This record gives sequence, structure tokens and C-alpha cells, in this order.
Amino acid sequence: MSLLSFFTGKKKNTASVAKDRLQLILINERGQGGVSPDYLPRLQKELIEVISRYVKIEPNDIQVNVDRQDALEVLEVKIELPPHLQK
Amino acid sequence: MSLLSFFTGKKKNTASVAKDRLQLILINERGQGGVSPDYLPRLQKELIEVISRYVKIEPNDIQVNVDRQDALEVLEVKIELPPHLQK
Repeated sequence: MSLLSFFTGKKKNTASVAKDRLQLILINERGQGGVSPDYLPRLQKELIEVISRYVKIEPNDIQVNVDRQDALEVLEVKIELPPHLQK
Repeated sequence: MSLLSFFTGKKKNTASVAKDRLQLILINERGQGGVSPDYLPRLQKELIEVISRYVKIEPNDIQVNVDRQDALEVLEVKIELPPHLQK
């Protein structure tokens, strides 16, 4: 299954698709013997700061999820964008 | 299917899992009447610059894919990390 079909399948019901959305996903896959990098939280914060330079983001429009399993760490940031209010 | 199980399922064969990997995915979902933002290429470039401040990245270790379907635009950046050489 491709990434695109995964997200097309996840698209919400039409009512909530009126808003533009931006989703940032950061996946860290540790090789054998690799340790989880301690920089992910700082990196996540800085990536959101970069995005906020392109689009106006309200703090309560940001939803952050972190999921870990084995050598995989998935950081997901969902941002609901104001209707076409770009800088 | 959760994001984590999607990527756990995609994990490569063990031989190539020796290396740490970082994957950045940016998904833009346009609401009704939304237009595709022209800033995505610049945003992508800047996000990679931010990551390169945390980990040493060789240009040929970066693989960028862009996929579009309907109102969905998926930008995928795969980065193979040098073995534990972090700044």
C-alpha cells in the first residue's frame, strides 16, 4: 500500500473536509544497536516553528501524537489551517 | 490501520536495517475550494535544512518523493543517517 493510498483512505467525512489541513510526520527508524535520538522533541518543535512561518497556526489547531514500537518512533503533527489565511 | 502499523509493515529486510533512518512526510489536504499552496517546495527545503542542523546529512542520502491525488499532496523525504554520527 502506498503512502498516498494510506492517507486517501484515512480522509475524514466530507463535512470536516472544508478546512485545509497540513500533517507533518517524522519517523525515526533505529538500525541495530541504534539508540533513540534525544533530539526528536527539539526537532519537532523547530519543524513546527518553520511551518508557522508559512502559515498562521493557532496553538489549539495543532495536535501532536507520538507512537513507539520496537525500533520505530513515529511523531505526528496535525495542523488545521485557517481558510486560506496564508502569510 | 494506524500510522505505526503502516510503517512497521513497511520495514525493510533486516540486512538494510543496520542504518538509522529518518523519514519526513508532509501531507497537505485541501479543503473544498482550497488551492494547492505554492509554498510546499520552499517549506520542504527549509524543513530539510532544520533536520541537517541536528544530524549530518549527505545530499545523496536524501530521497524526495511527491505524490498527488485529488485534494491530497504527499511529500516524502527519506534520509539515511550515518551510523550514530550526530552533531
